[in-house]
Amino acid sequence: MDKPYVAGIDIGGQTSKLGIVDARGTVLAQTSIRTDTHKDVNLFISDLCEALEKLAEKTGGLSKVRGIGIGAPNGNYYTGTIENAVNLVWGGGFAIPFAKLMRDKLNIPVALTNDANAAAVGEMTYGAARGMKNFIMITLGTGVGSGIVINGDVVYGHDGFAGELGHTTAVRYNGRLCNCGRTGCLETYASAIGVARTAKEWLESSDEPSILRGISDSITSKDVYEAAAQGDKMAIRIFEFTGKKLGESFAEFVSFSAPQAIILFGGLSRAGDLILKPIVEHMNANLLHLWKNKIDVFFSQLKESDAAILGASALGWEIK
Amino acid sequence: MDKPYVAGIDIGGQTSKLGIVDARGTVLAQTSIRTDTHKDVNLFISDLCEALEKLAEKTGGLSKVRGIGIGAPNGNYYTGTIENAVNLVWGGGFAIPFAKLMRDKLNIPVALTNDANAAAVGEMTYGAARGMKNFIMITLGTGVGSGIVINGDVVYGHDGFAGELGHTTAVRYNGRLCNCGRTGCLETYASAIGVARTAKEWLESSDEPSILRGISDSITSKDVYEAAAQGDKMAIRIFEFTGKKLGESFAEFVSFSAPQAIILFGGLSRAGDLILKPIVEHMNANLLHLWKNKIDVFFSQLKESDAAILGASALGWEIK
Repeated sequence: MDKPYVAGIDIGGQTSKLGIVDARGTVLAQTSIRTDTHKDVNLFISDLCEALEKLAEKTGGLSKVRGIGIGAPNGNYYTGTIENAVNLVWGGGFAIPFAKLMRDKLNIPVALTNDANAAAVGEMTYGAARGMKNFIMITLGTGVGSGIVINGDVVYGHDGFAGELGHTTAVRYNGRLCNCGRTGCLETYASAIGVARTAKEWLESSDEPSILRGISDSITSKDVYEAAAQGDKMAIRIFEFTGKKLGESFAEFVSFSAPQAIILFGGLSRAGDLILKPIVEHMNANLLHLWKNKIDVFFSQLKESDAAILGASALGWEIK
Repeated sequence: MDKPYVAGIDIGGQTSKLGIVDARGTVLAQTSIRTDTHKDVNLFISDLCEALEKLAEKTGGLSKVRGIGIGAPNGNYYTGTIENAVNLVWGGGFAIPFAKLMRDKLNIPVALTNDANAAAVGEMTYGAARGMKNFIMITLGTGVGSGIVINGDVVYGHDGFAGELGHTTAVRYNGRLCNCGRTGCLETYASAIGVARTAKEWLESSDEPSILRGISDSITSKDVYEAAAQGDKMAIRIFEFTGKKLGESFAEFVSFSAPQAIILFGGLSRAGDLILKPIVEHMNANLLHLWKNKIDVFFSQLKESDAAILGASALGWEIK
């Protein structure tokens, strides 16, 4: 094969990871650059292209790369733009024609989407969803993202922004205020921040003893996980509660697209059965009869350190 | 064209409508037979095929028909079966290979799906959704059905049963008990039966004067509409309440597939602006900022008497 590799770039608020990937999903080389030290997107893209060229030298140069896939917050697949991405120093406000700017510099095809959609494509290309035509990818990170696959394609919708399942509100009643300005969004409960929020609320509203009481205001989902791993009852219940919110929401998602599986990815996945068991239990309790015990829920098997690059890179194979 | 027509069959609990349709969506001939007088599905299919053959004689015979499309409760597009359709006398329990039984009798290709999916295909083929790639059809009849179109195709999901939006429960808290055994389903509020249920509940729980008080226990959504048309305040509020439940749910649906439009169809559509205005208002109030005031909501423009046949018939063009 003349151009046997693709490049994957995962743009995060603090750092951006980039890697060169082969068709089997091996990350041949990877590096990262800071995202938050560039106030101007053109400067960031200059540095990014430079880093990518340097990285590609390790694998025979950029001429071996057939396409570049990018996962970015608020990335729009149709337009190749990053729009109103408040978590990126240079990303607020107007739509930045990110894919075009990179293509113009490197003369390689570039495709861009949001990180959760990239994860879904990665899972289809290299992961547990290989051969699956209908599934939903849920990313449980700082926020809750989603990539919906129907008939083997990611759903982008009319405008390119489909799949905002972290902002569905099956749990609306008396729900928590979300960054999006609405209340009761799944993300306010089931993200890393949501888990920490639950811990703070519960600690304040009861006298129940808990290892978590030893921790200051800066309690994180990792603290809750570590406490649960030590058998702390409140911490365990926090994951049960989080799993319940996810399970209830998943039942709604199934009514929409009747997927074969829902695949979980991201930091909270580390909680393992602590979160998976209540998810499955409450999903099944809320599903229409015809779907009960028929929808698989499992964690992505992609290596966490590679997954973001793999997901983005998978787009690189699909550019026509 | 050798075979210029398709046949459409809409199977309802009491009667089944059938018609011969040309490529412009003109129903050239139509008739109906009873559904509920046949205890055995084979007898029903015999009568149905006989009625169709007779009908087709008016338009040059069955040899002019290239395909037959069927809309049926719990119809599964993948398998061509009708499964556990409790509203059909002969439809409960096991999966009936309905499409195959008809094809074997008539030797014409047959495709089958549920009525709401058929309505969506009809709308794409002959109606307001011509050329639209991403929209959601909501049928407001005895129940609430949905047909979801993504990238120009109806979403059937992994098992053929996707699109049960009438059984989503964005309004779950303290929700009404649904026939499906769960609580808070949209259908318990936004169907014809749901509207009547709201009227009965409100009449019982207050002393507010209303034209509806003159009506017995058998109050219907039509009574509520007629009262609202006469300016009855409670009746008007009932449609506002119904529209609110729909609008809140629509905001959830948009987060999933980012459609260009949501199209309404079925009996409750007759309420016009009484229901449309609150739907649009509450959908926009609950949408993520990026979609506010960008999603069209309107009624199907297909003639109501033809629509069920047209929807089913549209499947007939698509059989490969």
